[in-house]
Amino acid sequence: MNNRLKARMQAREPGLLNAWLVLGSPAVAEVMSRQPWDSMTVDMQHGLSDFEATVHMLRAMNGSDVTPMVRVPWMEPGLIQKVLDAGAFGVICPMVNTREQCEQFVSVCRYAPQGTRSFGPTRAPVVAGADYWKKANDEVLTFAMIETRQAVENIDAIVSVPGLDGVYIGPSDLSLTLGLDPVADLDHPTLLAAIETIRVAVERAGKFSVMHCSPIDYAMRMANKGFSLRTVSNDGRLLAMAAQELFRTVKSRPASGAAGY
Amino acid sequence: MNNRLKARMQAREPGLLNAWLVLGSPAVAEVMSRQPWDSMTVDMQHGLSDFEATVHMLRAMNGSDVTPMVRVPWMEPGLIQKVLDAGAFGVICPMVNTREQCEQFVSVCRYAPQGTRSFGPTRAPVVAGADYWKKANDEVLTFAMIETRQAVENIDAIVSVPGLDGVYIGPSDLSLTLGLDPVADLDHPTLLAAIETIRVAVERAGKFSVMHCSPIDYAMRMANKGFSLRTVSNDGRLLAMAAQELFRTVKSRPASGAAGY
Amino acid sequence: MNNRLKARMQAREPGLLNAWLVLGSPAVAEVMSRQPWDSMTVDMQHGLSDFEATVHMLRAMNGSDVTPMVRVPWMEPGLIQKVLDAGAFGVICPMVNTREQCEQFVSVCRYAPQGTRSFGPTRAPVVAGADYWKKANDEVLTFAMIETRQAVENIDAIVSVPGLDGVYIGPSDLSLTLGLDPVADLDHPTLLAAIETIRVAVERAGKFSVMHCSPIDYAMRMANKGFSLRTVSNDGRLLAMAAQELFRTVKSRPASGAAGY
Amino acid sequence: MNNRLKARMQAREPGLLNAWLVLGSPAVAEVMSRQPWDSMTVDMQHGLSDFEATVHMLRAMNGSDVTPMVRVPWMEPGLIQKVLDAGAFGVICPMVNTREQCEQFVSVCRYAPQGTRSFGPTRAPVVAGADYWKKANDEVLTFAMIETRQAVENIDAIVSVPGLDGVYIGPSDLSLTLGLDPVADLDHPTLLAAIETIRVAVERAGKFSVMHCSPIDYAMRMANKGFSLRTVSNDGRLLAMAAQELFRTVKSRPASGAAGY
Amino acid sequence: MNNRLKARMQAREPGLLNAWLVLGSPAVAEVMSRQPWDSMTVDMQHGLSDFEATVHMLRAMNGSDVTPMVRVPWMEPGLIQKVLDAGAFGVICPMVNTREQCEQFVSVCRYAPQGTRSFGPTRAPVVAGADYWKKANDEVLTFAMIETRQAVENIDAIVSVPGLDGVYIGPSDLSLTLGLDPVADLDHPTLLAAIETIRVAVERAGKFSVMHCSPIDYAMRMANKGFSLRTVSNDGRLLAMAAQELFRTVKSRPASGAAGY
Amino acid sequence: MNNRLKARMQAREPGLLNAWLVLGSPAVAEVMSRQPWDSMTVDMQHGLSDFEATVHMLRAMNGSDVTPMVRVPWMEPGLIQKVLDAGAFGVICPMVNTREQCEQFVSVCRYAPQGTRSFGPTRAPVVAGADYWKKANDEVLTFAMIETRQAVENIDAIVSVPGLDGVYIGPSDLSLTLGLDPVADLDHPTLLAAIETIRVAVERAGKFSVMHCSPIDYAMRMANKGFSLRTVSNDGRLLAMAAQELFRTVKSRPASGAAGY
Repeated sequence: MNNRLKARMQAREPGLLNAWLVLGSPAVAEVMSRQPWDSMTVDMQHGLSDFEATVHMLRAMNGSDVTPMVRVPWMEPGLIQKVLDAGAFGVICPMVNTREQCEQFVSVCRYAPQGTRSFGPTRAPVVAGADYWKKANDEVLTFAMIETRQAVENIDAIVSVPGLDGVYIGPSDLSLTLGLDPVADLDHPTLLAAIETIRVAVERAGKFSVMHCSPIDYAMRMANKGFSLRTVSNDGRLLAMAAQELFRTVKSRPASGAAGY
Repeated sequence: MNNRLKARMQAREPGLLNAWLVLGSPAVAEVMSRQPWDSMTVDMQHGLSDFEATVHMLRAMNGSDVTPMVRVPWMEPGLIQKVLDAGAFGVICPMVNTREQCEQFVSVCRYAPQGTRSFGPTRAPVVAGADYWKKANDEVLTFAMIETRQAVENIDAIVSVPGLDGVYIGPSDLSLTLGLDPVADLDHPTLLAAIETIRVAVERAGKFSVMHCSPIDYAMRMANKGFSLRTVSNDGRLLAMAAQELFRTVKSRPASGAAGY
Repeated sequence: MNNRLKARMQAREPGLLNAWLVLGSPAVAEVMSRQPWDSMTVDMQHGLSDFEATVHMLRAMNGSDVTPMVRVPWMEPGLIQKVLDAGAFGVICPMVNTREQCEQFVSVCRYAPQGTRSFGPTRAPVVAGADYWKKANDEVLTFAMIETRQAVENIDAIVSVPGLDGVYIGPSDLSLTLGLDPVADLDHPTLLAAIETIRVAVERAGKFSVMHCSPIDYAMRMANKGFSLRTVSNDGRLLAMAAQELFRTVKSRPASGAAGY
Repeated sequence: MNNRLKARMQAREPGLLNAWLVLGSPAVAEVMSRQPWDSMTVDMQHGLSDFEATVHMLRAMNGSDVTPMVRVPWMEPGLIQKVLDAGAFGVICPMVNTREQCEQFVSVCRYAPQGTRSFGPTRAPVVAGADYWKKANDEVLTFAMIETRQAVENIDAIVSVPGLDGVYIGPSDLSLTLGLDPVADLDHPTLLAAIETIRVAVERAGKFSVMHCSPIDYAMRMANKGFSLRTVSNDGRLLAMAAQELFRTVKSRPASGAAGY
Repeated sequence: MNNRLKARMQAREPGLLNAWLVLGSPAVAEVMSRQPWDSMTVDMQHGLSDFEATVHMLRAMNGSDVTPMVRVPWMEPGLIQKVLDAGAFGVICPMVNTREQCEQFVSVCRYAPQGTRSFGPTRAPVVAGADYWKKANDEVLTFAMIETRQAVENIDAIVSVPGLDGVYIGPSDLSLTLGLDPVADLDHPTLLAAIETIRVAVERAGKFSVMHCSPIDYAMRMANKGFSLRTVSNDGRLLAMAAQELFRTVKSRPASGAAGY
Repeated sequence: MNNRLKARMQAREPGLLNAWLVLGSPAVAEVMSRQPWDSMTVDMQHGLSDFEATVHMLRAMNGSDVTPMVRVPWMEPGLIQKVLDAGAFGVICPMVNTREQCEQFVSVCRYAPQGTRSFGPTRAPVVAGADYWKKANDEVLTFAMIETRQAVENIDAIVSVPGLDGVYIGPSDLSLTLGLDPVADLDHPTLLAAIETIRVAVERAGKFSVMHCSPIDYAMRMANKGFSLRTVSNDGRLLAMAAQELFRTVKSRPASGAAGY
């Protein structure tokens, strides 16, 4: 087992990009995995896939160059271990606000003695090779989502948890807990300051920061800011945007602008 | 976003009825949604649907007049938020026995600052409109199930939780914890007294009481008793009853009476 | 392998009833299979199930007393053989209007030398026993649907096809080709005369007549008329009727009357 | 039942656009149905959906303004009738090369006496209303695909078939049978001449021409040429294009250009 | 309701064997259920099935002689109750390390007054009969997994929890927490001593010990050691082994030895 | 696009083996694809998969070394083209008994001018590369099943059809039409003579012969007989055999011997 994404982040390769899948569609996952993403994340929190569809999506990525990851819906030990056994090379856990929550999260991702992950990697060795279980503690990426005011206050305690590879910054939820608009205020100085606080703390701890960038131009503004990886948009949004661009091109009728997906 | 069911309950419209779906079938959901129910609830606790089938069922209700709700299996923050993101206009949470449990439940249903719900309403804006997230805290219905002796004892503390819209009364579980038969004793004075205790406390708090009525005649006996909404029977039971009625009509062979579904 | 339905029809057991499933739901199939039906048919023509859901439905009938059958969408040799391999004990083929069509249908249901069915009964022996393939030619029921004016004209030629077990009468389509209303004219003398013509021809040929009765009272009017088996209503209609009866009972609001399913 | 697309085409409303779905994803269908398409077609020929996924996709369009259509894989009477029963308001049949093939296609789409469609509209009345079956012969749209040299030669005989609403022009297959490249030669004079031959014949017959335009700029070049409806791109291509545009914007790494989907 | 497995374990029937299903395939479950297993367990922890596939698998076992059980992913009250409602006759809960965890687990498996299981056995009565809910507390098997050093230390406190039927020993995880290799050290004296400690404590408490034996020869070495039931191998491993044996037989090319599934 | 199996058969590589999948399980397909098979065939005729499950199975083979093929249920042009668009590198068509049938089969597998395959390779380029459509006519393998007495009589006419790559010999059906037992007579001289007749004719025509060998020892007896490829057993049978071997090893209780799958 070798985690290409981890190796490239460690090598400080610039410009790494992560795709985000909310549509729960294996066909979409397959199409997207043949685009030059560095990693792809199945979003089981706000996305539409159950575990079984998630496995179909991971299979669709087989044979591509992307590193597969999953964002789980919550700090649920059962599901986190299931997606690891199913071959996710990285897990993103929402709403990690305290050091204790972070320790719990990391613990279920690591085999003893580092943690408490249960042994039984059903599908992972098929993707990662027969040495999977021996290397998993070193290779599987663990990202704690930092997305609340409380988490920012606890950032040093959180990032110092052994076995945590880095943090995943969720600017929308972070803005909400800072009293800002989660859609309109993504460039608000208060939010940007909090993000910088996180990034600096993570860098100090020698770990990775991943930045969630839903609008594409946000990803551009977040370039060259020291993030190890940026998520850009998501499959549903890309599709809706493409349709809206199509309508702008082909006819004058205005698109509905429904924000969904 | 406008929640018709909430508006009608607020207007004290009498006789509102809620359908209950345990079969996990999108086709059943579609057929039922074209009947004059005021709301429909996908039962993910005792019913047979996973999240993905639940989403198919919510889609099947598109274009109908029913308000879609989901009963989740347990106080699981991840799944509660998933069904909200998927467009449920109301959530019913089982086994809320203490004020603390109720606060946790309500918290995950409300965006900050009222709660801790994570931002990312994937499908909901498609159903509810682009203003979904701004109105969700006001419009999404939250029902705590009152179904144990302990919950009855804590009823005032529970119903006073800010952001809770009302309670959902489960008479079978309530009867079990009162030492009664969950099927045969639905009209037992002890049970009826507990139900009345709940209803009065809820009314005092200015909130909604929803009554689960599995036999149809129970729904009739519960009419005009001050409940904002009554659930009547469920899809599996209706189907089994219809088959049994068919056999009574067509031939003399007695139906098996299997209680399932 | 023993086909209970065939044995009972041969013994001229009166009052045999067949359930009809259009909802494509394994849960519905399981609930219904525990009611005292003599056989159950998954309708793949006008119903909503693909092959895979059909197999789930056949599995749901495991361990019950009903004899499982499938109505295929059309005279498609591939699918007819798939449902047989999947364990259907009877196949109903729509729109058999000529002797040649009937011969083709029967041929794909029988192993050589009686027919051309391909060998490979994947799931059937699990249900029927290891002797399945040796007894299948004798035990699997084949029903040709007689549902057009042309088929009535060819009825003697059709029913005399060796290996055909009987006919399945579709009164709605038959009424359409007779210039009648497929819903309102089910008791029209012209239709009833055509049905009687069919029944007499089948009886003369020593085979079985099955009558499709969508309204329950039609099934009652068709009792004691010499049919070997009657289908009564379907799962979607039973559910809609049960809901409408529920509304008549519980409140005065009229049901929508949507005819679907 | 009222077919908005048919009414608008009859009213010669300009600029009508049809979406094309190959990904087999209900979530994609739902997102797209909230964009201002006039109709949407589930492609069961080259797309990835089976019948059951197609039904989920049709349900996802519930409550939107688009008119739902299906392209079937082939002139298969069973499946054509299944998608109609499932609520498709239009059917596109591939490879109609002769008048006889066209007659067969139209026949299975029309109830007697106009055709031979079997009665049993399971889901359609839920979408279209209880009068579905009485209006279906008039409202359901039937499009024969003209996509071979042979079909062009037979165009007058094909379009004169009673009950056929129009033709659907497939330029890629047409170019192949004309000895051209199906991707690079879409503007070749030989192909354009054949398309014009078709369009003129259809106009003479007083019927509708629908033009399949896979690249968006092809749709623009085909505007104002007398087509009643244009298909523009498809969901998989839109997604791949959006990803490629994203990569052009965010970083310099070239997209892979994989043509799939 | 009668639980054959429980009755046979109580009668100390020797040599009882449990099958283990990780592939998440209803077809596999059906094939396996017709082999002479005494019980079969759907592994929802390390296996690939969601709840809905698990229900399909339970249905596939209908009509066979095996007693159906489920290993849940974690001590999740919602899912444990769902699999019971779906007809599992036994539940195996991972990582029960303390008496308190064991009490929580047992509580959600038992109706009041013994526990807190919510009433609503949707599918179970179909399999188990209308008396299901009255007998479930006595008949449903509850197994706590003992698979950590901590659990061994707490073994007496754990096994004395009322309502617990027995323990399920997971040697791989146990070896990990004992500092051993979870694959190579299954016969290590330290591990065997811990297993014997568990077995003796369970026997003293008058309960059942179930032993997980992944390699077949491990099952043989564990015979006649006082376990009430042994799990042998799993469906994915059996399939891979059969393929490898096939390659050894048919050709000299060595099998890849990928350990997956 | 490069078809490794075709290249290796052309190079007369000895001992090539094909896996056969009837269980319809993507997990099984994934496990098996990591064993050293040279090709794998999803059996859609006697197996349990619909098109959608077949696509999941093809995706599960992504990244492995096996060449994916599909046996279709019948000579259905729609489905044959769907599985090709979905990325099958070879198609096996049952019951090709005449030259005309063979011509129809080959025609739908080849783009004009060689055939009539419709253009729209949705998933295939993802697996095979952007040049898929230009190379598909040369690289996609077409196998006609020879499995009846009539086909043997027509063998020279069948194998000489241009564009046909070879034949697939089905000994069970062949034995049935020769008046033999499809299970017990696989070594009957009459059957072996027919097989040799086929093989010689195919060799004369310079094409490939593939031999279906259900029992493993049959595959061994068929080695070194000039077949380009041998299918050995199938997933369901391997699993059942492995279970039976397990029972022989672990305990004396005889396996049931159910022949299913």
